[in-house]
Amino acid sequence: MRIFVLLALLVSTTVFSKEWRTPDPDNLVYLHLESGIVVIELAPFMAPRHTEQFKALVREGFYNGLDFYRVIEGFVAQGGDVSEKKASAHKGKLKAEFVRPLFEGAPFSVLESPDLFAPQAGYLRGFAAGRDPEAKVEWLLHCPGTVAMARDNEADSGTTDFYITLGQAPRHLDRNMSVFGRVIYGMPLIQALPRGNPEINSGVIDDPKERGKILKAVVAGDLPKEKHLAIEVQEQESDAFKKKLAQARTMESPFFHYKGNGKLDICYHLPKSRLQP
Amino acid sequence: MRIFVLLALLVSTTVFSKEWRTPDPDNLVYLHLESGIVVIELAPFMAPRHTEQFKALVREGFYNGLDFYRVIEGFVAQGGDVSEKKASAHKGKLKAEFVRPLFEGAPFSVLESPDLFAPQAGYLRGFAAGRDPEAKVEWLLHCPGTVAMARDNEADSGTTDFYITLGQAPRHLDRNMSVFGRVIYGMPLIQALPRGNPEINSGVIDDPKERGKILKAVVAGDLPKEKHLAIEVQEQESDAFKKKLAQARTMESPFFHYKGNGKLDICYHLPKSRLQP
Repeated sequence: MRIFVLLALLVSTTVFSKEWRTPDPDNLVYLHLESGIVVIELAPFMAPRHTEQFKALVREGFYNGLDFYRVIEGFVAQGGDVSEKKASAHKGKLKAEFVRPLFEGAPFSVLESPDLFAPQAGYLRGFAAGRDPEAKVEWLLHCPGTVAMARDNEADSGTTDFYITLGQAPRHLDRNMSVFGRVIYGMPLIQALPRGNPEINSGVIDDPKERGKILKAVVAGDLPKEKHLAIEVQEQESDAFKKKLAQARTMESPFFHYKGNGKLDICYHLPKSRLQP
Repeated sequence: MRIFVLLALLVSTTVFSKEWRTPDPDNLVYLHLESGIVVIELAPFMAPRHTEQFKALVREGFYNGLDFYRVIEGFVAQGGDVSEKKASAHKGKLKAEFVRPLFEGAPFSVLESPDLFAPQAGYLRGFAAGRDPEAKVEWLLHCPGTVAMARDNEADSGTTDFYITLGQAPRHLDRNMSVFGRVIYGMPLIQALPRGNPEINSGVIDDPKERGKILKAVVAGDLPKEKHLAIEVQEQESDAFKKKLAQARTMESPFFHYKGNGKLDICYHLPKSRLQP
């Protein structure tokens, strides 16, 4: 009997402390660049309309042959159709999804309350998120690798073109843009994209030949299983992830002579991802 | 007489609002990579010993033919001599320069007080800096593009190898490392360097052929004037720079529907640099 109890404990510990999860392939988009594959994990729980339209565009082949036409060092890589002329059955203007009502049931792990910008910053379903308990809303943060829809001045004006943040977190875009995913694999390929000059034409690269190309985009779930990349993401509720955050907070390593003030920047502490070892 | 006064006013306005400064070529190092030139502005006012040794190593040709051997996405590109065997007359262990006493005479422009990590964050001689008025010390911040000397666990152990931060600001390194400069030109070339795997051998790239090379490093001031790059940096005390910060704080553009909380992240708002137009 004692052995049985011990076994049951072991199992439950294992369940709670599982460090790596395999994202749902139906929520993964593979962007094939000339330099390799970039993987985006989508966030339909936060931006269902944007996720749906993005996936429809991917399945239609809309992005195939288009490029990252506006790439600004330290800010964003924007991809899609700079001409705005490519035909599509899925180009409708999207109603903004900047924030959503507080989730019931999905764990929000608070990291800082407040951080520099949000009343609460933490983790929601593996994404860096902000939360305002008074206004009862939450949203996804602009950290490096965040994927969101570009738009005009009007809130409800996103259609097809998206950006990936690649520099210091542009947190002023939080609650202003519809974030619908994040890059979990291949960020170095985004970092290596050719840049535009931000002082000329908002950073748009004039010559299409000088732009980084999107060869094709596919939804992973549409591929046969043997073509899936074996990507795993750190589980925000795992003991391992929480332990790393606790260690970062106290800076106990002998490497650190100044031990900080106990605060953590959520955009520096994103759940990591890896190819299955 | 009225005309004279007006002229004098114009001149003084021009002096105070000069947006761009030309850094001292003796404080600039050109790193020649296979992909182009990266320019580092040195900060002898903060780390005189590290700056002096780095310049001596550059002038000796120490870095020529070495490489960026440890490059971790979202963290740092570390360059120098991974073998630790290359001979040099300037390899002495450096006494740490993590912080220094408050400057008299150099303007410190406060941006946030406190920011998430420092009692005060602001600008000091064109660099992002932290300040603790109680402890009466200041230091340079780890923002993207910061250049600092690598070291072992001991504070006074830096010698030749340096790193350039390339992801979300690793602010836990503030007051723990001797920052002696920042990249003011060519960051996209640093961003495009081949990465190591942080889970294997701390991100060191095993095969030297796969590492980004440093062809040579030179002090700009040692070159004839016609070989100087015409680089300018935004002046922290200029009206133009201060106006941009004020606009960022209020987010008055019609693009922004949520107007933020009035806070700014200093590492997102570094003085810009450019080639003279």
